[in-house]
This record gives sequence, structure tokens and C-alpha cells, in this order.
Amino acid sequence: MQKKIDHIGIAVNSIDTALKFYQDLLHIQKSGEEILEDRGIKVVFLYVKDVRIELMEPIRENSEISKFLEKRGEGFHHIAFEVDDIEEVLKTAKKNGYRTLSDTPQKGAEESLVFFLHPKSANGILTEFVQHIK
Amino acid sequence: MQKKIDHIGIAVNSIDTALKFYQDLLHIQKSGEEILEDRGIKVVFLYVKDVRIELMEPIRENSEISKFLEKRGEGFHHIAFEVDDIEEVLKTAKKNGYRTLSDTPQKGAEESLVFFLHPKSANGILTEFVQHIK
Repeated sequence: MQKKIDHIGIAVNSIDTALKFYQDLLHIQKSGEEILEDRGIKVVFLYVKDVRIELMEPIRENSEISKFLEKRGEGFHHIAFEVDDIEEVLKTAKKNGYRTLSDTPQKGAEESLVFFLHPKSANGILTEFVQHIK
Repeated sequence: MQKKIDHIGIAVNSIDTALKFYQDLLHIQKSGEEILEDRGIKVVFLYVKDVRIELMEPIRENSEISKFLEKRGEGFHHIAFEVDDIEEVLKTAKKNGYRTLSDTPQKGAEESLVFFLHPKSANGILTEFVQHIK
């Protein structure tokens, strides 16, 4: 089974402020910026070799990450593993009693299928599985 | 400047229990296990392509991660970036007012030099820089 870390999601109050760290110390620039209206967030991806860092900033109250930021402050939000057969991974997860956040893979960004495991089922970490279908 | 994500540190109550997740869903096995007496932890590394996941379990009260586990529970602990000139990164960090946890690079595992940035200086994430010197 192919697998790699696809990206690491980081919740921040301000992407512009957060970017300074990556630019100053790692000379990494952002690649693209996207507003996701329905989720209430702005995201920017940074490439660190072939793993991406996803910076997530709320664009309104009650965004997907507002509660997280209020409760825990800025920081690590989720990890995503790329797999080549997401249906198989989901089936194995369900069979073994892992707590998934959906019953089927959902449509993710850029022609992908994704599902999430609840942190309680994944060593305290909100965990995403991604299969890129293009 | 060369840079990649060297590893992601995850604090867990039990490495044996934590490993099940990686074995079940990603078919990843551990590679080696080490007891670090002075830090009061046991560590295991898992390779996900060329990024390692470091599982850290306390082996006594008042270990390096005991307080973290009591306060936050299991979960993401730190991220480490590999760089090819750690002195230069440290110099830049200090010059730009980033809060470092040491004034000079320290001896890390496996012939490496490391230093840490306080989470307050790195978007809420305890951040390690590593230069492998072999």
C-alpha cells in the first residue's frame, strides 16, 4: 500500500502573520491561497519537499476552526495521510471499531476523496485519509 | 537551503496501543525502540515515506512529556524540520526575535545538532530544527 503524509493542518489567527515564520526561518513561500466560504476559512499551502503544510485561518465567527482557536489557540490541527485505496482503509477502520466522521469517503479538494478519524480513535490526533483520484 | 520535515513527535500513554493504529490502517511497522532514561521516555520511530513519526511514551512520573499528557492528553507534541545549516537558522531566529529554548545548538540523537523554538514563536507549535552531521 502506498502511503505518505499528504499534509499537516495548522490553525492560525492570521495566515499573513504565520507565514513570516516559514519565510524567515525556512525560506518557504506560500503556493496559492483559497477562500472556502462554506467552511468559513481561508487556506494557504506551503510545500516542504513533498509534504504540504496547510495554514487555516477563520474568515468569520463560527467557522470550522473558530472553536478550536478559542479553546486551544493556534497550533497543530490535523494530519492527513495519502493512501491509494481509501475505500479499503475506511472498510478496515470500520471493521476494527475506529470512529470515523463519515460513513463513506467525501469529496475533498482538488479531485480527492477523504475521510476523517475522530482523535479518540487516532492517538489524540484528528486524522484525515486522502486518495487523489487524478 | 535544503529543508524537509524530519519528524513529527506524538505524545502517547502507551506506544504498544498507539502502534495498533499505524499497523491496522497504514500497515506501518515500528523501526527500533529506544529508552531515553535522562528524559524519562521511551521512543519509537515509524517511517512514512521519508518523514518519521516519533511516538513518545513516559517511563516515569515527571518525564519530559508527563505534564503535557496530564494537561492535554495524547496528541501532537512537536514538529522537526531538517535544515543544512542550523547555526545560520539559529542566528536568523535570534536576530528576528524568535524565542529559542537554547542559545546554541544542542547535541541531538544520532549525530545531530538541534534547537527548539518556543510555541509562542512558531504559530503555537513546539518546533525543532535538526541538522544531521553524518
